[in-house]
Amino acid sequence: MSKKENISLSVIRRLPRYYRFLGELKKSNILRISSAELSRIMGLTASQIRQDLNCFGGFGQQGYGYNVADLYEEIGKILGIKENIKTILIGAGNLGKTLSTQMDFHSFGFDLIGIFDIDSNLIGTTLNSIVVKDVSLLEEFCKKESPKVACLCIPKEAAEEIAERLVKLGIRGFWNFSHYDMSLEYKGIAVENVHLGDSLMTLSYRVHDNL
Amino acid sequence: MSKKENISLSVIRRLPRYYRFLGELKKSNILRISSAELSRIMGLTASQIRQDLNCFGGFGQQGYGYNVADLYEEIGKILGIKENIKTILIGAGNLGKTLSTQMDFHSFGFDLIGIFDIDSNLIGTTLNSIVVKDVSLLEEFCKKESPKVACLCIPKEAAEEIAERLVKLGIRGFWNFSHYDMSLEYKGIAVENVHLGDSLMTLSYRVHDNL
Repeated sequence: MSKKENISLSVIRRLPRYYRFLGELKKSNILRISSAELSRIMGLTASQIRQDLNCFGGFGQQGYGYNVADLYEEIGKILGIKENIKTILIGAGNLGKTLSTQMDFHSFGFDLIGIFDIDSNLIGTTLNSIVVKDVSLLEEFCKKESPKVACLCIPKEAAEEIAERLVKLGIRGFWNFSHYDMSLEYKGIAVENVHLGDSLMTLSYRVHDNL
Repeated sequence: MSKKENISLSVIRRLPRYYRFLGELKKSNILRISSAELSRIMGLTASQIRQDLNCFGGFGQQGYGYNVADLYEEIGKILGIKENIKTILIGAGNLGKTLSTQMDFHSFGFDLIGIFDIDSNLIGTTLNSIVVKDVSLLEEFCKKESPKVACLCIPKEAAEEIAERLVKLGIRGFWNFSHYDMSLEYKGIAVENVHLGDSLMTLSYRVHDNL
């Protein structure tokens, strides 16, 4: 299986969904699946599925369908989820607390090694066995541990302030809940913006459309 | 401004982003913006923007650009975010607590009127001025208040169990954090699945691609 160059982001964004569905099939002890059947359960067309997987060299054998465990394993490798990228989380408020305690970073390819905040009420508390540190210790920590990803659970203004500092400290990817749209300013840095409000607004439109 | 039929979901999904950017421009007292300039700040092509907005009858005047406040207002109307759909939240654990206290439902078109859980330690506590109720009171509550949307902050298995019950009680849209993929089973019901793990996996791929 070889990875081709210039895979579009929309294909990449579908891979985690394949990975989830294949994981479920694997759990149910299903060994092989045709693209027709996979397309039915995922709500995609069979040709879309073949096209997507062909971007990575293709996995199926004509007439035999896909080997579920192999395809699951390969997509996991493509996504790099066995690599455990060292990750820090900035902002130990409600959202940061929820993510650091509820999110299984490991199973998605990340190793959460540090949590930082500016609030003296939060500094020193423990989340998911990690002691929350003062954000002023960021330089020291990053020099020692070299984290590559930062999860931003802070307001927009705070994110604007800290983003450049983090990039200088070697951060190469952001999981960004801050509503500060970084992707346009830092080329070459991977940014996944999570705008929960956007999905709520989409839901609003769709519910009104149905009522 | 007239809404055309059969707008694709991918156009709909971009509208909240337009709405956010226009809101920022409005806050900065910018009165008009060309599609070229809007495309620059949003990272879309100008022709994409014209196409998107044409789905709703178009708003711009050739050579004059878009009136920021009008376009903001109109997209808000299309999204229905002034309507305040009655909404309940199921699951008052960490995530439910974070969403009910941190998410400004009102500004996205929703009115959070009830929170339910099965855990006797959570029932009776107050989140965002709402007392958490026993999930056994759901029928009584829904008959009286007629909520139309449910936010599911419960595990996959619990969501599978409760989804049909909620649909029978009149729920027409789900904001679904449960990893139970409902959209395929309940046609005609709007479902926005939020898979935070998917964006983490996408980030994993993109960071490895950059390293």
